[in-house]
Amino acid sequence: MSVLGKHAIVNGNLVEATEATLPVYDRELQHGFGVYESLRIIRGKIVYPEDHILRLFHSANGLQLRHRFTTEQILAWLRLLVEADGIEEATVRILMMGGPEARLFITASPMLSYPQSFYLEGVKAVSYHGERFLPQYKTCSLLMNYLALREAGSVGAFEALLINKGGSILEGTRSNAFATEGDVVYTAATEEVLEGVTRDKIIKAVSELGYRIVFEAPKLREVLEGRFDELFISSTSMGAMPLRALDGREFNAPFTNASAIHALIRSWELDALH
Amino acid sequence: MSVLGKHAIVNGNLVEATEATLPVYDRELQHGFGVYESLRIIRGKIVYPEDHILRLFHSANGLQLRHRFTTEQILAWLRLLVEADGIEEATVRILMMGGPEARLFITASPMLSYPQSFYLEGVKAVSYHGERFLPQYKTCSLLMNYLALREAGSVGAFEALLINKGGSILEGTRSNAFATEGDVVYTAATEEVLEGVTRDKIIKAVSELGYRIVFEAPKLREVLEGRFDELFISSTSMGAMPLRALDGREFNAPFTNASAIHALIRSWELDALH
Repeated sequence: MSVLGKHAIVNGNLVEATEATLPVYDRELQHGFGVYESLRIIRGKIVYPEDHILRLFHSANGLQLRHRFTTEQILAWLRLLVEADGIEEATVRILMMGGPEARLFITASPMLSYPQSFYLEGVKAVSYHGERFLPQYKTCSLLMNYLALREAGSVGAFEALLINKGGSILEGTRSNAFATEGDVVYTAATEEVLEGVTRDKIIKAVSELGYRIVFEAPKLREVLEGRFDELFISSTSMGAMPLRALDGREFNAPFTNASAIHALIRSWELDALH
Repeated sequence: MSVLGKHAIVNGNLVEATEATLPVYDRELQHGFGVYESLRIIRGKIVYPEDHILRLFHSANGLQLRHRFTTEQILAWLRLLVEADGIEEATVRILMMGGPEARLFITASPMLSYPQSFYLEGVKAVSYHGERFLPQYKTCSLLMNYLALREAGSVGAFEALLINKGGSILEGTRSNAFATEGDVVYTAATEEVLEGVTRDKIIKAVSELGYRIVFEAPKLREVLEGRFDELFISSTSMGAMPLRALDGREFNAPFTNASAIHALIRSWELDALH
């Protein structure tokens, strides 16, 4: 991520962005003993900050990463950074590193967003066999995700979907995954994956739009055999993004379901800014 | 790891130790896309530097972490750091982080060593069910190791042994693992574990001492049932260290096999310094 603005927050202090560093001597850095969140700033406002802070604490708790940070503190620090640099649009990262004294970094980068064509035409994905360690938490243990995404990129795909030993599509390297069949939307059970902030909104949107959600991870084999009408992935940056292909299997636009869900969750985001 | 001396090496430059940092913005830092080695300095000399650099390159290669560093460069930089700070004894870490341009850090910390009583009386270990991602490479993906070792520490154990889905003891969180039965020494197959620099010396010592090595990971169940005479773990810092207990199962000193192997590999180290 590149640097946006002049500043960062380190343990509550507004510092020069260049000071947001970790010593390579640090044992927790060396072991990736940390958790993080990515948030969006739109029109100078933070999108769903409480949801993200709640999940940050959930991840820290899952690792027994002890800290004394509070929701109020982190909210205030987020606002401090937004104001100090007059940020209108950004992707903001909160990183909490463990240690004898937990450390918290808030950094802003240019807003991660995608061209409209990705939503209209869909993006390509490939499968990758692997399971995340502690999938319920957003931890710094991301090497597999990095390698899977690099492999996807090398064949022109936008995302890699992680397939577990049972052949099920649990999630993407930086997204949750969904498949639709008629008016039913399938996704992995909550305890199998990262409980995404956006995933949660999608589940609400699915009900709102009159579809039915089934918590059963779609099987790769069934996707390739043509069982599903649409596949889409979700994240804070992506919203709901349709796939036009997974491995060999192609899907044709228009992606009615994914589009409707995407439009609805993005409208909720804007509502929440007020 | 705490800092030893005033300096560190960053991409070949001798810098203040405080400058050996990584920005938290760094995508490769965020994903743990890096490999490392730990070496010992004894009497101002580096122990087996070529072996460690070879394995560093092996790990980088395994991740397709592209870099232009050479053995000669890294050797020269190690020596530069040792001379600059007049280091007599230390544990030195080489960290190579990937990225558009790979980065290399060499840092010195006080020598990691253990009291003689650990070797005479053995240390306690507990089992931990989990498998490392890409076990053949020494990567920064260490969260599981961190958590397993913390869990071991919380019950007064020195190490956690990682048990795979088949119930076999593959390795420790920072060590290789061995079990002896009569004159046979069992250890996991080379492709299942990190091919330790010290593991390699132990395999040589086993032959030298007239034992036989069998590349078959000992089963936890068989350990608990009493099949093996001795269990020991190995690493650059530990040499060969006997276990006096694994979970409930106890082993009694003297640990003849582990002691003989430890003495031999440590004498080879000293020989290699000349």
